[in-house]
Amino acid sequence: MSIYSPSIEKLIESFEKLPSIGHKTAARLAFYMLDLSEQESNEFIESIINAKKNLKYCSKCYNISDSDPCPICNNPKRDSSIICVVEDVRDIIAMERTHEYKGVYHVLHGSISPMNGIGPEDIKLKELISRLSDNTVKELILATNPRVEGEATAMYISKLVKPMGIKVTRIAHGIPVGGDLEYTDEITLSKALEGRREM
Amino acid sequence: MSIYSPSIEKLIESFEKLPSIGHKTAARLAFYMLDLSEQESNEFIESIINAKKNLKYCSKCYNISDSDPCPICNNPKRDSSIICVVEDVRDIIAMERTHEYKGVYHVLHGSISPMNGIGPEDIKLKELISRLSDNTVKELILATNPRVEGEATAMYISKLVKPMGIKVTRIAHGIPVGGDLEYTDEITLSKALEGRREM
Repeated sequence: MSIYSPSIEKLIESFEKLPSIGHKTAARLAFYMLDLSEQESNEFIESIINAKKNLKYCSKCYNISDSDPCPICNNPKRDSSIICVVEDVRDIIAMERTHEYKGVYHVLHGSISPMNGIGPEDIKLKELISRLSDNTVKELILATNPRVEGEATAMYISKLVKPMGIKVTRIAHGIPVGGDLEYTDEITLSKALEGRREM
Repeated sequence: MSIYSPSIEKLIESFEKLPSIGHKTAARLAFYMLDLSEQESNEFIESIINAKKNLKYCSKCYNISDSDPCPICNNPKRDSSIICVVEDVRDIIAMERTHEYKGVYHVLHGSISPMNGIGPEDIKLKELISRLSDNTVKELILATNPRVEGEATAMYISKLVKPMGIKVTRIAHGIPVGGDLEYTDEITLSKALEGRREM
């Protein structure tokens, strides 16, 4: 016989499926959920249902949003002649947090990874190319992750887009601010050296 | 303008209300939830709804359970002449994990705490007393938490129950197994000394 009642067991299992939630935290969350009032737990459930129901992909940049086009694509203050290409919706949030970037985005929803059977046709690449066809885009910033797949994807896009006469840039690799030379891996360090700028 | 869409914002806020979940984890959980299939997210939601709907208090011991009486009270192998008094349902689970205890439980759902305006009438104390009235209970083990409120509650119950001719015991305080004398606080250490047993 399990220590828990079946309904609690089921609830704990549900929470355990969430990323970074172990059994103990799952049990704590489950009991917290049981302690909530009817109204509070309904609010929690509704926030999930509403998010799943309301959110859609922006038909321009494939960001996830309550509206289509998304607020960024729809914002007249954003410069639509610069497109920053990212792998994931979460990367947009990371970029937006800098408050530095005033262009628009394109979410690939993945990266080219032959090892995992993901080719150029499996990501939102032809959608990107079709956005470039009206000749209004001046610069494409490739902000895919600095990993093998991200680099390969950036390379692939660069080769595809450069002949169209569009400036293609890649975000800089280097030592993170606050980082330590001693503990920086040699690849990052050599990238930092390679990308050095005159002061 | 917020970085997130309103529906995501609301979902992240929901997760952020859970204990031990900070903003970053909440965002990760929210995006995980969005990535789930319709069926998977429905299973998650249903586990919450079912738990809230099915779980009730055991009318004997006030444990939380799918059935009334709870599986422990209903188990003929458990010795109902010994009652272990705990503050919270979670404490039953901790006790059950030892696989040592074969008696039954009584959940107080709190502890006496005058500072927080919680008196004896606010916890399941009269329910405990009424369980003792049929003279079948031989021992009452007070397993309230070894904190001020738990000690006060144990003391209060002890004074109330002892005159009824029932043996009242308190779980032992001492150095945790694997603990270190050097790092044990003096109150625990003096309790360990006080509770020393002949070898």
